[in-house]
Amino acid sequence: MAAGHTQANLIAVPADWAYDVLLFAQRNPKPCPVLDVSEPGDPRTVLAPGADLRTDLPAYRVWVDGALAAECPDATEFWRSDLVAVLIGCSFTFESALMAAGVPLRGSTVPMYVTNRPCRPTPRLRGPLVVSMRPIPADLVPTAVEVTRLMPAVHGAPVHVGDPSQLGIADLDRPDFGVPVAVRDGEVPVFWACGVTPQAAVMASRPPFAITHAPGHMFITDALDSDYRI
Amino acid sequence: MAAGHTQANLIAVPADWAYDVLLFAQRNPKPCPVLDVSEPGDPRTVLAPGADLRTDLPAYRVWVDGALAAECPDATEFWRSDLVAVLIGCSFTFESALMAAGVPLRGSTVPMYVTNRPCRPTPRLRGPLVVSMRPIPADLVPTAVEVTRLMPAVHGAPVHVGDPSQLGIADLDRPDFGVPVAVRDGEVPVFWACGVTPQAAVMASRPPFAITHAPGHMFITDALDSDYRI
Repeated sequence: MAAGHTQANLIAVPADWAYDVLLFAQRNPKPCPVLDVSEPGDPRTVLAPGADLRTDLPAYRVWVDGALAAECPDATEFWRSDLVAVLIGCSFTFESALMAAGVPLRGSTVPMYVTNRPCRPTPRLRGPLVVSMRPIPADLVPTAVEVTRLMPAVHGAPVHVGDPSQLGIADLDRPDFGVPVAVRDGEVPVFWACGVTPQAAVMASRPPFAITHAPGHMFITDALDSDYRI
Repeated sequence: MAAGHTQANLIAVPADWAYDVLLFAQRNPKPCPVLDVSEPGDPRTVLAPGADLRTDLPAYRVWVDGALAAECPDATEFWRSDLVAVLIGCSFTFESALMAAGVPLRGSTVPMYVTNRPCRPTPRLRGPLVVSMRPIPADLVPTAVEVTRLMPAVHGAPVHVGDPSQLGIADLDRPDFGVPVAVRDGEVPVFWACGVTPQAAVMASRPPFAITHAPGHMFITDALDSDYRI
């Protein structure tokens, strides 16, 4: 339904944590491309004028001291006047460009893995790089790199091609998030930095309060995927 | 002497202004590509391990309440424990790439102009887009666009080609900063977003205290210009 419209990850934190989120994003631009930041308490975004970030996502998670406190289809009752909403790019954005370039993709929810590579931390935020994996026919890997490197606002070129063990991934069939996808003969697993990275770091760092999208239930913006191509 | 080494603009502000600077940069990525941000009080940067941001720039300006208070070759006596140093990309970085692609450049200090285009503001920071201008032979304008669009961390593709009046520039011979360069027959003025933009906004917004590089006296990092090519 939203083909061609850019999806975004939501992390809303109290204003006194917003600097840490922006700093973590600046220090880790591949997994954390920031697409928009709201004013404190303001549930609007330039990415979708008229939308309300409290109600217009399919599902939310509410976090208190880093622990899941609620999952709900409407975050209005939890929204606070000091919440800053940070919208982070999602690799779904480059999937239409890959398919347009003849790179086949399959599976509904991409598998995601926590790696052994630490992100560059801030004083209050630290965590490992999280990656998404797509099996790509070996002869199309160069095309996949070429297409996605021109979209740095939505993770850009892959961070790793091939051998999952070099990323500390023991078993591709057991992703940390999402649904596994088989790597068939003639295909290579290709790994892109994933927008779950900052959310995982924020949760691990236990801010007193946060609201995020529920996994797989991203915010659909008015922006077009093609807007994020250089 | 620093050919191939990336130069950076410095803006150091008290920690309680650092969020505004990062937010302004996120909202205006073409003029404000942030290359690194220090911890409060820490004069070091990952862009040049071993360097000291208090002493290793050729010249500094010290600002109090938005007014110039000092210009000096060493900022140590002015550095504060709450200062956050923000290093911003400089369009000099793509000049070596342009020349390598056969695009001739001339002049020592590029002319810069305040335009009629407002940046997207934050609650505490606002100001117009500042651009740099280089005269480019008409047949090489496409090459200049192609080369620089692949370097979004140092301003990327031009924001405007031709007619200066559309940017509100009345007279190319009277730049707001830098030294004028003649546009000769067969050349077109090409305008790139300029790293002076955030500094101009910070100064116009009158933070209680700031330290910046002096115009034309940027920080020379250990990073290579080619590191910022996608």
